[in-house]
Amino acid sequence: MSAHAVTAQPSRSPGAPLMAQPAATASSAPTVFADRHIGPRADERDKMLATLGLGSLEDLVAQALPAGIRMREPLNLPPALSETEALTALRGLAARNNPRRAMIGQGYHGTVTPSVIRRNVLEDPAWYTAYTPYQPEISQGRLEALLNFQTMVSDLTGLPTAGASLLDEATAVAEAMTVARRSTKTGRVLLLDAASLPQTIGVVRTRAEPLGIEVQLADDLTAALRETDAFAVVVQTPAADGRLAPTEELAALAALAHEQGALVIAACDLLALTLVTPPGEWGADIAVGSSQRFGVPLFYGGPHAAFMSVRAGLERTLPGRLVGVSRDVHGTAAFRLALQTREQHIRREKATSNICTAQVLLAVAASMYAVYHGPEGLRTIAERVHADTTALAADLAAAKLAPDHATFFDTLTVAVPGEAAEVVERARRGGVHLRLIDAGRVGISVGEDTTPADLDAVRAAFGIDHGSTDGTAHGDLGAYGDLSASARTTSYLQHPVFRTHHSETAMLRYLRALSDRDFALDRGMIPLGSCTMKLNATTEMEPISYDGFANLHPLAPAEDAEGYAELVGTLEGWLAEVTGYARVSIQPNAGSQGELAGLLAIRAYHESRGDTDRRVCLIPSSAHGTNAASAVMAGMKVVVVKATDDGSVDLDDLRAKIELHADALAAIMVTYPSTHGVFEETITDLCALVHDAGGQVYVDGANLNALLGLAQPGRFGADVSHLNLHKTFCIPHGGGGPGVGPVAVGAHLAPFVPGDPRTGRVGNGVGPVSGAPFGSAGILPISWAYIAMMGPDGLTSATEHALLAANYVAARLGAAYPVLYAGRDGRVAHECILDLRPLTKSSGVTVDDVAKRLVDFGFHAPTMSFPVAGTLMVEPTESENLGEIDRFCDAMLAIRDEIARVEAGEWPADDNPLVNAPHTQGAVMVDEWEHPYPRRLGAFPAGLHAGPIYATGSDKYWPPVGRIDGGFGDRNLVCTCPPPESFED
Amino acid sequence: MSAHAVTAQPSRSPGAPLMAQPAATASSAPTVFADRHIGPRADERDKMLATLGLGSLEDLVAQALPAGIRMREPLNLPPALSETEALTALRGLAARNNPRRAMIGQGYHGTVTPSVIRRNVLEDPAWYTAYTPYQPEISQGRLEALLNFQTMVSDLTGLPTAGASLLDEATAVAEAMTVARRSTKTGRVLLLDAASLPQTIGVVRTRAEPLGIEVQLADDLTAALRETDAFAVVVQTPAADGRLAPTEELAALAALAHEQGALVIAACDLLALTLVTPPGEWGADIAVGSSQRFGVPLFYGGPHAAFMSVRAGLERTLPGRLVGVSRDVHGTAAFRLALQTREQHIRREKATSNICTAQVLLAVAASMYAVYHGPEGLRTIAERVHADTTALAADLAAAKLAPDHATFFDTLTVAVPGEAAEVVERARRGGVHLRLIDAGRVGISVGEDTTPADLDAVRAAFGIDHGSTDGTAHGDLGAYGDLSASARTTSYLQHPVFRTHHSETAMLRYLRALSDRDFALDRGMIPLGSCTMKLNATTEMEPISYDGFANLHPLAPAEDAEGYAELVGTLEGWLAEVTGYARVSIQPNAGSQGELAGLLAIRAYHESRGDTDRRVCLIPSSAHGTNAASAVMAGMKVVVVKATDDGSVDLDDLRAKIELHADALAAIMVTYPSTHGVFEETITDLCALVHDAGGQVYVDGANLNALLGLAQPGRFGADVSHLNLHKTFCIPHGGGGPGVGPVAVGAHLAPFVPGDPRTGRVGNGVGPVSGAPFGSAGILPISWAYIAMMGPDGLTSATEHALLAANYVAARLGAAYPVLYAGRDGRVAHECILDLRPLTKSSGVTVDDVAKRLVDFGFHAPTMSFPVAGTLMVEPTESENLGEIDRFCDAMLAIRDEIARVEAGEWPADDNPLVNAPHTQGAVMVDEWEHPYPRRLGAFPAGLHAGPIYATGSDKYWPPVGRIDGGFGDRNLVCTCPPPESFED
Repeated sequence: MSAHAVTAQPSRSPGAPLMAQPAATASSAPTVFADRHIGPRADERDKMLATLGLGSLEDLVAQALPAGIRMREPLNLPPALSETEALTALRGLAARNNPRRAMIGQGYHGTVTPSVIRRNVLEDPAWYTAYTPYQPEISQGRLEALLNFQTMVSDLTGLPTAGASLLDEATAVAEAMTVARRSTKTGRVLLLDAASLPQTIGVVRTRAEPLGIEVQLADDLTAALRETDAFAVVVQTPAADGRLAPTEELAALAALAHEQGALVIAACDLLALTLVTPPGEWGADIAVGSSQRFGVPLFYGGPHAAFMSVRAGLERTLPGRLVGVSRDVHGTAAFRLALQTREQHIRREKATSNICTAQVLLAVAASMYAVYHGPEGLRTIAERVHADTTALAADLAAAKLAPDHATFFDTLTVAVPGEAAEVVERARRGGVHLRLIDAGRVGISVGEDTTPADLDAVRAAFGIDHGSTDGTAHGDLGAYGDLSASARTTSYLQHPVFRTHHSETAMLRYLRALSDRDFALDRGMIPLGSCTMKLNATTEMEPISYDGFANLHPLAPAEDAEGYAELVGTLEGWLAEVTGYARVSIQPNAGSQGELAGLLAIRAYHESRGDTDRRVCLIPSSAHGTNAASAVMAGMKVVVVKATDDGSVDLDDLRAKIELHADALAAIMVTYPSTHGVFEETITDLCALVHDAGGQVYVDGANLNALLGLAQPGRFGADVSHLNLHKTFCIPHGGGGPGVGPVAVGAHLAPFVPGDPRTGRVGNGVGPVSGAPFGSAGILPISWAYIAMMGPDGLTSATEHALLAANYVAARLGAAYPVLYAGRDGRVAHECILDLRPLTKSSGVTVDDVAKRLVDFGFHAPTMSFPVAGTLMVEPTESENLGEIDRFCDAMLAIRDEIARVEAGEWPADDNPLVNAPHTQGAVMVDEWEHPYPRRLGAFPAGLHAGPIYATGSDKYWPPVGRIDGGFGDRNLVCTCPPPESFED
Repeated sequence: MSAHAVTAQPSRSPGAPLMAQPAATASSAPTVFADRHIGPRADERDKMLATLGLGSLEDLVAQALPAGIRMREPLNLPPALSETEALTALRGLAARNNPRRAMIGQGYHGTVTPSVIRRNVLEDPAWYTAYTPYQPEISQGRLEALLNFQTMVSDLTGLPTAGASLLDEATAVAEAMTVARRSTKTGRVLLLDAASLPQTIGVVRTRAEPLGIEVQLADDLTAALRETDAFAVVVQTPAADGRLAPTEELAALAALAHEQGALVIAACDLLALTLVTPPGEWGADIAVGSSQRFGVPLFYGGPHAAFMSVRAGLERTLPGRLVGVSRDVHGTAAFRLALQTREQHIRREKATSNICTAQVLLAVAASMYAVYHGPEGLRTIAERVHADTTALAADLAAAKLAPDHATFFDTLTVAVPGEAAEVVERARRGGVHLRLIDAGRVGISVGEDTTPADLDAVRAAFGIDHGSTDGTAHGDLGAYGDLSASARTTSYLQHPVFRTHHSETAMLRYLRALSDRDFALDRGMIPLGSCTMKLNATTEMEPISYDGFANLHPLAPAEDAEGYAELVGTLEGWLAEVTGYARVSIQPNAGSQGELAGLLAIRAYHESRGDTDRRVCLIPSSAHGTNAASAVMAGMKVVVVKATDDGSVDLDDLRAKIELHADALAAIMVTYPSTHGVFEETITDLCALVHDAGGQVYVDGANLNALLGLAQPGRFGADVSHLNLHKTFCIPHGGGGPGVGPVAVGAHLAPFVPGDPRTGRVGNGVGPVSGAPFGSAGILPISWAYIAMMGPDGLTSATEHALLAANYVAARLGAAYPVLYAGRDGRVAHECILDLRPLTKSSGVTVDDVAKRLVDFGFHAPTMSFPVAGTLMVEPTESENLGEIDRFCDAMLAIRDEIARVEAGEWPADDNPLVNAPHTQGAVMVDEWEHPYPRRLGAFPAGLHAGPIYATGSDKYWPPVGRIDGGFGDRNLVCTCPPPESFED
């Protein structure tokens, strides 16, 4: 079955001449989406097959994939839609969502995304197709944007160190809980503000239980603190009901907590912090919250960038990504991820968090919102929101509907005994969604986007004819809206970056300049093993900007969210079909959360059968570090299973470990095809062994791009998987997030997928793992479109082409760089590991040197030293055409020749194009060139004019900085914007 | 009145603290659009005023503008909308247009814009904010795309040389008429196919009349040719009624025409040409048509790129832009505009066309559609269109509704006596727009976007229950659809560029690579005098992608076009208000067409009064060349009026010329402020003199950006103006088009604006000047949004800031480069002319050298040698902030220092950074540097890290080629894609 089995819409042309066919290519016309998604044309495919000595894709699959797991029937999915049809269908679904004005609040607020940011960040492939900035030299643009984000959070919260974003506010509180747990050695109780956002309470409970943490909800935190041996207290301010506590009250709480050795976690609101005392000033140790209302669409709940900032002394416990300032080899200030040794991929089972990504694209958008508005602009917005809320409060009070609290920022709770549903429905008919708290109470949250007409609709819903006051004309405000007891007295966002780009022209150029510093898929291949950097098609991306998808509040009533309900249902069904599982939940908003959800399902399953002691999770030595970290988060004990020399799971060791742990065996977590890029023949045996011992088999879906349409984990022995929609299913990496990590389970585990009280979905003891009911709903149209437009044959063809590309690379490069592992018949799966260790030994040239040298050739490096140190793992994906794959292979072979010259002593080990890579403009444009190789070879190893048709020198991607010294930055930690002078020549 | 007179939405915050105001800036919060559009913050504005020794913008206006023309009342426009409000309003207007499926044809066809092209060309500021490629070294990306366009047209039409696009098919036919007129010395009759598109007939008539050409419509061209002494014959093929003439018939017509000394002009369809014999093969001399159906949205009629290709020998008569291949100083193949000496700005009153732009953005989109589909993809689309049409024809015939013609490509004419309106209405209710030809005939045109459901709706409209045939299953086709008598036998699009970028990944990277080669507003200032390169705000741009604006057919019935009707009406009204005229027509789709329309109005006005001899048009010597060319197009005789030493119109010479021509005086065309960038004090005197002599005053609106809100041409003495919506009103230049050139007239000229029979608008003798009733309707939302969001105060403030910026530049640079002209108090208007002639004399450094050296600094050059040879004209516009303006001034001063070193003999005249500019990567990365200045100075004259906050070396813009030798290319004319090898190192 080939890409071209997806036939173009048949055509006939009676009497039309048979035009002489140009010989250059034999491809059919590219009128179906699969032909746009898949890189190689038919003639290229045939050349690649010929290189492998094969006649067809089927031959390759027959060699690479164990016959026993091969699907017998094609995928049961609808036939492929055209791009036009998919857009039409998604437009129809979006039209069945009715955003109205969202005044529901609860962590999700109306905001105005500046158009210049929408078009030039959220809709710009230079931003959204970038990868996580592990190669910092080619990621300086988004690293700067993230540093702006960190500076913004740090300034607004009044705490010195902020991370580069977390998944959502609810998980951020849970992460803060574990930070506190690790930092305070006593107590097992977390005191949680009863006025926390409901989703925070849900997620914290889910996360606390397996860790043995007891969550106590308290209305009066101070009183509760006196009575409890808590290790931390979480205060939501402003509270979910809108109350804004006076600074003095918060300071007293913090003092008491610190007296008792507990940490204080403040869940707060960035916009409110432009007006009220920041947590760092009243004594909080940790601040968390969401940056959504800084210009990020509601997206029916996500993706949004949550934030966390901490006081001095806690920075090394921060979960997730942290950007810091360091310097490059030329002494120029340069950005990179800081303190990586604390991350889950290094700490593995010692990790205290399994977070391995951030919400970069959304954090960039939120930071740019602050850059664009500046401190005064933000304050003006906050003041207007507050003034409108105050006016409403006064009007309600005048109508004998006094809100519950007289001090607030943007949210009011109003008692209307027995009439709440009616009020909410009246508001809805007036175009506004309010919050139905219970039968007798209504919540109102004002946002940046609230208009005078919306305020009138709210008043009307409460039976108030017209406002006696409004946000601009001073009326009788009574006791309402006085902020003096909470007032902020310190300035913020004083760095020049927040004071420079306030015209649209300046903003546009800043965005362009930053994105130009980065290398993303819009420039060339990113052959990262295990990351599946495939095409993120425009037709997949466009619908996320549709009003119905972008602007719906996650708690909008079901009748206004029918489009999303259908989209989610369909997508979950399709994902179940392609993986062979019984049920899928798209709630987890990252792979790590999917892993956790899967393991929690296993845990709950065992417990439901009375198997309360099954706590051992077997993990092969080659596993993603996240697996181990997730197992710990799920309250499991990690036991490592060895690998054999050929990279497979050592079944003998597996048998021994199973025997050793016997009735304690909960599960095994394996990746398939393995992280070694090989289809292990023994996968079915492995499943049988574990099942026989009463364990469950978790197959990490990271490598699903090698399986789709060929084999289904749910059918060949696995009980649960998580999928990475940002790998196999085309959600772009966004420069380091967002991702979506659905959990897929067999029928017996179906009752244990994450629940959510708000959707009526009961998790049989497993609560929500993400803040929003449907996780990062806003980007699900991307994966929906991908599956819909590929259809069953297209998906299968994509997998076949992914296998073809990896095997072609292995064949072309194998002689120069040994391919470390291969399966039966010497075939790899969708990626291959190139072993550089012998070359490093003979020449001193490291994987790092090769990775950086690839930048000079115009490539993002493959995955470095995972899963085996000293190797590169290459995953070309199906979307790269032969031209680009050959350009990469040519570069790798040229690099091999350069290594040979080092080996031969022609170039010294400490001065050659490899150790000096990447070459910056400044480095090659020195007046005196003092290296033993020509300067042109440094910067243009493939020649000045290498590249696409008509390429000229300017098509070269230039890294803005040279090799970065990461250690320097970790020793001299700077995680906020440095003064511009530090970048001077 | 300042930018900040546009107050932010007022806010209050009772009890809120007065946060200490950071001292860095005193600007108010940037929450109104005017503050985003206008570059300088308040503190920057004050610094700039201080440099001028002024206290306020009002002081500046009082000095610069003659008091006599100053408006007394503010503009009568609605108050400014916010960006959100404007988007909401435009979404509402778009929703009142109902595109349905457009099967009306007539030169406008349903097409599928590939999403990757929409997002990365039409919606990408790197493409749409670029200027016309007069500086070819920094325009190689779009020049390559245009060369692809020319190659595509040349290949498909079978004629060797194609231009870079024209305004629309109708004007292209009119231009072809003048080409033929010039090339054939005898005959004054143009034979025009009666089966031409109606708009072609209308426009050709408008254009022929003032040139003394007689247009004869003929049903039988061969017969008519025998009887007429025609200089050219125009054949529409396929005809407007769908008929596809056999190749033999066309060849016979061509042979006969040539025998009689007449040229043959074929108006043809690019998609049809993938299947049928191209005009070049049956003997046509000129081919014209529209490339709209190659992926360009219908846009309610425009903008679209028309094309023209010609046989060998006619290339030097091609109107409009022509891209050619030449070479740069290093011998690399490089693109630039070819044969510019034939253009209107050089030929002036000797010009045979007044076209001074192209439809670059649309031509790029159409060319990329061909690049993406390739020859086979295009043919597949054409075959499907033809097959669907054939199936419809057979079904109609089976139902006794046989179409008029048995051979066709995509269009059928069906006789339904007395029932046509009913059929069309039934189709409309079924979701399809058909063409109502007359009471008894209906036209059907199938497009790429036609679905089986649409075909069913068409059948149903004719009372056919379901198709006996369809596009895929062979039914009984009877005599229909046989193409054998017209079949194409030659191949096309065999250049590799049409065979390489067929996956979306490849396409995306090609688009990115090309746009990266160009310098546009998204990178830096483009201070082009007389071009007003201001911000094209994203909020202005977004709505043109809305379904209701993008996909409506220009001949859709009025009830489905209400949104456009309101938009056009409102915009025409606003434009009349800001210019002080009685009536505006937005029909002219370029400034040149606006000029022509204005002069035709004057001509018709005089004629309506019996003044049939008034044919003299006075034009000052400093005028845009287009003015003279337009006057010739309007059948007028150009008489030049001298300038005084200070650059003003010489009133003495004016009096003399008026006296000399007395009763023959038709008009004077002046630009105000003058093309010298000065507000002439004598403008009111000038108007009086001309009026007293019975002439009309035409004020060219090119410099309206210096007037808006301060003075109105329609009130200070002018009778007519054209406006450039692509200058003052924010339509982006698109890399060289589209533009819109509305004509604005006083009440006495109102009856004479261009008519259009299809809109019921009668031009009192003046027919349509553009193909579509409302010209380039699709981009009018941009100007609508600009005016709506700026409001009266914002527009005025923009003008004031434009004056401020130009005067600031004049003040900063005046000592280094004399400012050639200034008005009262030494103030310039919105631009200033820097005189380089003394420096050229002393150093040999030319304006060209300075312009190219600015590229090394990261700037687009100012306007060169217009209106005075040896000078640079700088127009910063209001959108540039002080940082960027200062960066430009610093660069100009650094260049002055470099010139000084040449003057001093430190650097030889033939080897210095100026004559060697621009410096390419290849040039500065040679191993041996052999110039007398450091290599870093060559490439980084402002230092490695110059630029925005945190800028690093990589932010530098690199020209892909060095100084281009234009003459070489003109001597060796190559206007289609050269083989890739010609670009090798």
